[in-house]
Amino acid sequence: MFSALLRPLLRPSTHGVVFSKGAIATFSSVSFVRSRPYVKRSVVAGVIAAGFGTILTYQKAYCRSSEDSSLVCKLYMAESLTPNVEELSKKSEGMKYKMEVYCLKLQSRVCHALEEIDGGAFIADRWLRKEGGGGVSCVLQNGSVFEKAGVNVSVVHGKLPPAAVQQMRSRGKKLKSGDRLPFWAVGISSVVHPRNPHCPTIHFNFRYFEVDDGEGGTQWWFGGGTDLTPAYLNENDVIHFHRTLKDACMKHDSSYYRKFKKWCDDYFDVTHRGERRGVGGIFFDDIDTPSQDEVFSFIKSCGDAVVPSYIPIIKCHLNDAFTEQEKCWQQLRRGRYVEFNLVHDRGTKFGLFTPGARIESILMSLPLTARWEYMHRPEPGSREEALLKVLREPKDWISLD
Amino acid sequence: MFSALLRPLLRPSTHGVVFSKGAIATFSSVSFVRSRPYVKRSVVAGVIAAGFGTILTYQKAYCRSSEDSSLVCKLYMAESLTPNVEELSKKSEGMKYKMEVYCLKLQSRVCHALEEIDGGAFIADRWLRKEGGGGVSCVLQNGSVFEKAGVNVSVVHGKLPPAAVQQMRSRGKKLKSGDRLPFWAVGISSVVHPRNPHCPTIHFNFRYFEVDDGEGGTQWWFGGGTDLTPAYLNENDVIHFHRTLKDACMKHDSSYYRKFKKWCDDYFDVTHRGERRGVGGIFFDDIDTPSQDEVFSFIKSCGDAVVPSYIPIIKCHLNDAFTEQEKCWQQLRRGRYVEFNLVHDRGTKFGLFTPGARIESILMSLPLTARWEYMHRPEPGSREEALLKVLREPKDWISLD
Repeated sequence: MFSALLRPLLRPSTHGVVFSKGAIATFSSVSFVRSRPYVKRSVVAGVIAAGFGTILTYQKAYCRSSEDSSLVCKLYMAESLTPNVEELSKKSEGMKYKMEVYCLKLQSRVCHALEEIDGGAFIADRWLRKEGGGGVSCVLQNGSVFEKAGVNVSVVHGKLPPAAVQQMRSRGKKLKSGDRLPFWAVGISSVVHPRNPHCPTIHFNFRYFEVDDGEGGTQWWFGGGTDLTPAYLNENDVIHFHRTLKDACMKHDSSYYRKFKKWCDDYFDVTHRGERRGVGGIFFDDIDTPSQDEVFSFIKSCGDAVVPSYIPIIKCHLNDAFTEQEKCWQQLRRGRYVEFNLVHDRGTKFGLFTPGARIESILMSLPLTARWEYMHRPEPGSREEALLKVLREPKDWISLD
Repeated sequence: MFSALLRPLLRPSTHGVVFSKGAIATFSSVSFVRSRPYVKRSVVAGVIAAGFGTILTYQKAYCRSSEDSSLVCKLYMAESLTPNVEELSKKSEGMKYKMEVYCLKLQSRVCHALEEIDGGAFIADRWLRKEGGGGVSCVLQNGSVFEKAGVNVSVVHGKLPPAAVQQMRSRGKKLKSGDRLPFWAVGISSVVHPRNPHCPTIHFNFRYFEVDDGEGGTQWWFGGGTDLTPAYLNENDVIHFHRTLKDACMKHDSSYYRKFKKWCDDYFDVTHRGERRGVGGIFFDDIDTPSQDEVFSFIKSCGDAVVPSYIPIIKCHLNDAFTEQEKCWQQLRRGRYVEFNLVHDRGTKFGLFTPGARIESILMSLPLTARWEYMHRPEPGSREEALLKVLREPKDWISLD
């Protein structure tokens, strides 16, 4: 792992000041950049001022190529969104800070694991919301192994409008109605689309939400999940993936895997196609028992399982030979991925209709390329048809208990 | 034009019985096929029985390559959905039949005009809904000029559920509430995505709706429009396009173009990107004055304008040289097209959430291929940026009055 961290430093293209494509614009926030020693060298000089605030684009190599190459640069892809979050996270009531620290560390861990395989480097855009909070969006695009990989952390806080409070009440949250209630949301979400059609796509997302109940207390819950979307079915891969997630679940509650595996199959349903998006995984929401610390511990087990559930599969298939026809099938499956994300995914739809949301971070999940053919039907008995079969009727890959 | 009609006959690949990709399945409806002399030779033998009924795939060459090559084969891509619709359309009260005949003729005219340019042939899938009606979906895919072109006619009838009646009442329709009311909808819709990035995409759609008001009368209205989506802006093309549509409007009402041009800019708004989908055209709905015949006459003027508004633009640019970067930009714009259609387009969303809808016909509008890059920004002063400028702030291409 350590050698992978150093690898980008050796490539001359990552030296010198690079303006990312997003970095054409005003420099009204440069003073902010310059006033922080940590980012002095790591910031790729662009700053854009859009509706959602300010973006700083980092090329991590800078951070790691100099005397600034301190621990913080290996642990994080960019500065935290909440100032001094590590300090704050040590307080017992600081779950929102603990979750931010965990998400930022997981982001870095996943990005480094993918960079190690790909040889390419993520860029990290740190952006701030005028209304409170912001995010760190890390993207590796057009890599040698990964066509597009995005890992996004966001921290959003402010006041919930009464309509949103009402909607939460209807989901069983005990909140005072009619008021604008302060909330805080922290999450990480990621989609990784490899180039080779024999390497599956992974998606994961973990989030923590807390909201003042308007009567002196707080309602909080966690949600999230991890799921796999292959273009070609390899049963060993799918079993390895599910077993890793099940092991993570089993450390906490023997009913979790069975429950969350089904929830995943139900959620990732491309209803208009009569197909699931992929071969599943786990999915859950509104988890608020047995205790905050215990749920957080479960979330960390799930997050920690991402790299071991996925990376071995990629290592196994990244050099698999493939035909033009197999690539074409992968592209058709990417089209289905786009359909699910734009038509059905609640998080994406919520983001697209939220004024001031950072669209580029929301749509990071879309593949680099996708394809739609009218009336495409795989040959009977083909591997393409074998995939469709399990998408149409999800199966249990391992024992549920 | 006539030579183009004959051209497919000369290509050996279109002779012999061809099973389309959609044609793997049971032959439970073959007797239906065989009992009709018109389709005897024109039907590509496949019949599939899915949720939405029965599909017959036609390769028009058959129709035109034999003694069956009668007038009906040139006028229509497949049999009408309503039996004897031409006869029925001659009755004065038969607007739904007149509209079906018009849509089927327009479909054939557009398909032949595109085939003439492309050299390839459309396939025509005729499908029936169990609940009443059906459609004819014509697709040309992977052509030499057109990456994907779809022209779909559908005729749908049955009874509106009370919730749909309520929704129409809220739009001002005078309908008895609480009842399931008989309705009849006829429409044509089409999207044409050319291969060359200097050739724009066109979309058009015309529809007629009638519903029993529950008290012995009928409410009816027409809707539709035509709009253009270039990847590169060529002002002459856009002016030609708008002028042709304006001329069609001006024959009927001097306020139409101004009103419907603005409606188009407002409707094709990719709100989450802050961009319009393209350079506009006309769009309208709920048109029910001054009289049914006059509105139908307006609809026909609009439909008749499709070929002359678009084909000259394609002829002008189909051999334009283009770079890999220009192709890439076209693909990114196709990604935006997918976003609009899946996230915002009311017709598509309605279709995707309608049980038993024919998904392949609804999603025919999606391009063959599309692309999403994180934070793509065109170079300042580039032709790509010039396009974005007019998408962000729609302009009047010609005088509105």
